[in-house]
Amino acid sequence: MAIVVLNSATSGINTRTTLTERLTASDLPIRLDPTIRSQALRVHAALRTGILEGLLPAGLKLPSSRALAMQLGMGRNAVVAAYEHLLSDGLVETRQGAGTFVAAGLPAPQAAPSPPMPPVERPDRGAFALGRTHVEPAFLARLGAAVRRRIAGASLSDLDYGDPRGSAHLRQQIARFLAVHRGIRCDPACIVIVSGTQHGLRLCANALLSPGDPVWVEDPGYDAAKTALTAAGARLIPVSVDREGIDIAAGIGAAPHARAVYVTPSHQFPTGVTLSMRRRVALLDWAQRAGAWVFEDDYDSEFRYAGPPLTALAGLSAERVIYIGTFAKTLFPGLRLGYLVLPPSAVRPVLAERAAFDRFPQKFLQDAVADVIADGTVAAHLRRMRTRYAAARELLIEALPTASGGLLHPDAPDQGLHLIAYLAPEVDPGCAPWIRDRAGIVARLLSETRLIPGGREGFVLGFSGHTVADLRDGAARLGAATQEAAAVFP
Amino acid sequence: MAIVVLNSATSGINTRTTLTERLTASDLPIRLDPTIRSQALRVHAALRTGILEGLLPAGLKLPSSRALAMQLGMGRNAVVAAYEHLLSDGLVETRQGAGTFVAAGLPAPQAAPSPPMPPVERPDRGAFALGRTHVEPAFLARLGAAVRRRIAGASLSDLDYGDPRGSAHLRQQIARFLAVHRGIRCDPACIVIVSGTQHGLRLCANALLSPGDPVWVEDPGYDAAKTALTAAGARLIPVSVDREGIDIAAGIGAAPHARAVYVTPSHQFPTGVTLSMRRRVALLDWAQRAGAWVFEDDYDSEFRYAGPPLTALAGLSAERVIYIGTFAKTLFPGLRLGYLVLPPSAVRPVLAERAAFDRFPQKFLQDAVADVIADGTVAAHLRRMRTRYAAARELLIEALPTASGGLLHPDAPDQGLHLIAYLAPEVDPGCAPWIRDRAGIVARLLSETRLIPGGREGFVLGFSGHTVADLRDGAARLGAATQEAAAVFP
Repeated sequence: MAIVVLNSATSGINTRTTLTERLTASDLPIRLDPTIRSQALRVHAALRTGILEGLLPAGLKLPSSRALAMQLGMGRNAVVAAYEHLLSDGLVETRQGAGTFVAAGLPAPQAAPSPPMPPVERPDRGAFALGRTHVEPAFLARLGAAVRRRIAGASLSDLDYGDPRGSAHLRQQIARFLAVHRGIRCDPACIVIVSGTQHGLRLCANALLSPGDPVWVEDPGYDAAKTALTAAGARLIPVSVDREGIDIAAGIGAAPHARAVYVTPSHQFPTGVTLSMRRRVALLDWAQRAGAWVFEDDYDSEFRYAGPPLTALAGLSAERVIYIGTFAKTLFPGLRLGYLVLPPSAVRPVLAERAAFDRFPQKFLQDAVADVIADGTVAAHLRRMRTRYAAARELLIEALPTASGGLLHPDAPDQGLHLIAYLAPEVDPGCAPWIRDRAGIVARLLSETRLIPGGREGFVLGFSGHTVADLRDGAARLGAATQEAAAVFP
Repeated sequence: MAIVVLNSATSGINTRTTLTERLTASDLPIRLDPTIRSQALRVHAALRTGILEGLLPAGLKLPSSRALAMQLGMGRNAVVAAYEHLLSDGLVETRQGAGTFVAAGLPAPQAAPSPPMPPVERPDRGAFALGRTHVEPAFLARLGAAVRRRIAGASLSDLDYGDPRGSAHLRQQIARFLAVHRGIRCDPACIVIVSGTQHGLRLCANALLSPGDPVWVEDPGYDAAKTALTAAGARLIPVSVDREGIDIAAGIGAAPHARAVYVTPSHQFPTGVTLSMRRRVALLDWAQRAGAWVFEDDYDSEFRYAGPPLTALAGLSAERVIYIGTFAKTLFPGLRLGYLVLPPSAVRPVLAERAAFDRFPQKFLQDAVADVIADGTVAAHLRRMRTRYAAARELLIEALPTASGGLLHPDAPDQGLHLIAYLAPEVDPGCAPWIRDRAGIVARLLSETRLIPGGREGFVLGFSGHTVADLRDGAARLGAATQEAAAVFP
């Protein structure tokens, strides 16, 4: 079989000899993919790839269909069909009486994309990493069984375009939970299931704010919230936090006409302070007067170690407060489930934003989570986790002062899955990054959660979802490094 | 037991007598929720709700803990704890020697939010509705079993914060599929799993465009894409579509420095035209010169009725083209799975945008879909659906001319899940909305997909996922209404 390079000048191949030698009948440089069933498609795909990769250069005469079919051990019709497809692709040309040629004028062959595996940032996962949770195999087995039932029994409408608010079943369960535990009475029609706190906050900020709008944020405060608000075009106004929580008077002084405020009232992130009732009333008064939105992030109120939490802001005002809840802490972050409770006036704009973004959420997992809430599985899980996390918290509260010779002062939180170990005044706060490196831990520094420099320094330590051994070991290393810092940098 | 209203002026209750009468010991107007296990929490929740709803008005003296405990048949400690929680809530006050009173100065009680069930827009689902698919119970059973296995066998990292690109397993399966069927060679590291075409397009537009950037869109064209681009701040430049697809010269004439173009090259939506190879080359040349992004929406290329599709644009240029694929058509829209194939230079900005939006996607369902791709279940499903949808297409192509007495001209598509039934020249195009109403069908009009008025009128009819009976019936009604229109509006 003769394979001839008609136009080596445009072929991009070094020499005619090389190509002609390589393209003997038995090794046309194409790879047939055995998983393609149709012979015609298999030949077509192989030739197409060869042409686009430049292995079959422009102007190359292809073997006759008969010859190629014989070589490949296929029916001739398959090769004829493949050639026809290549012709309709514009990848080959026929010349009267002369045969089939690789078309000229195709884009220069791409080098095989040398995959530049881009660095993907994922939170560090060592001891003290925030946001980890513990999940028992039995819980996963139940959840898995529930999802299987939901998928196997899917209705036509489950398969179709769905409700932008997500599963009605889950929204009902959430409304019920909020009424009992958070003093929030809401209609499930005003609940929107989202992927998590940040997703919910971003949807709301996109929907309800305009670029450049000033928004109060707690300082120190939660990074992911600041990221979402900034991405939505908001101008962040840091407002200091004291022992009663965010300082409403300071916020009014800095930006009285802010369009929104982001707060973590039941357990301020990261300090753990609870927003006092009089501050709550002052905040809602201001929001009402200013026509501002209150984004209430209630991220870990399910884990209380001392009494029930204060009623949520959304339980005090149904007009200006958007309540944001998450299953990332009660269950696990990989579940990607959170929710918004919207005032009626915010429902339409937020759903319009969702319609222009991710449209509507997947429903099977939501329905299954509702199933394991309804049958008591989640409540039982929470009871066990409260005990477990309380023990982890106790462990750190005891271990850190001892390990540090009294130089770390853990602040015992009433609630949640992290604590702050404050540096004693006798340690230079500037040492904190050195201590962290020395200890080889992943904790955030309190100073890293601030927009306005100053204030006490400390380590924000997650204690949930880590083994006792890891926590003990982390505390020992952090304590030792702190003592070393005090000695080295007196 | 004495319950006295101390301050009826602030109570919001009509008369002292009324309240005193109502609040006899046995019917303090609170509801105990039997599902709350802890007695203390049960009493606390009930009293809190009563206070916040105004049923227990400011200044009301609460019964002594002993008296209430007796009435409720509980231990006194539970009631004492509930009162303490209410005190720390700021919802009650104690007065030296006088007892416990509902606090003054609380926000006015909210009326129970009269649920204004906001209208939620979901696509209409009658015969000819677009984007429906057929899914067999056996497929759902396999998918459900795969998800159950994935959840029950979840690793620690499956539960934790995850890869913003989604499941590595699914990205590998997609890369393999694209290499074989679409001529695209890509590294799974450059694939990002999204919820669907619109979600992917919006992420890219947010990440890669600036507000006000001009973007070419096909005219007529796909609404949801225009919605997403507009929401990202793009300025849409409608570019006409002819028999070779989008008119590149017209686009260059209208906006030579556009920052991006949105195209459906393999099967233009809604016209069904395939972008010719010379237009493909011209488009990529322009994009390269202009430094513009090409958003290639390849929404239904898995359903071909005549030969393989042209190689995707992303198979011709790895630098400027962002390929957008979806499982909404191959499987079903409720699955919420699509994907982006990004040029290496776009990976970082798109992942940064995801980090500020929905962070990372849920992985179990993705892994499970990868499992049913890897084991051949999806390929078998696609083979059966091709046969089924081809038959539905044939049905309409035959039925519409007959039913309309030749006044509807269905354009037989080579690909996809919809066709256009053009109105014959003898019917006034202005009648189309009348015909649609008269026939009681949900089809979009071709004119409704255009930004620039003019051109032929027709009905965009989805034929997948509908029963034969529905399609026959819809065709009969549409044909009859068209004939009626021709008679009524000659």
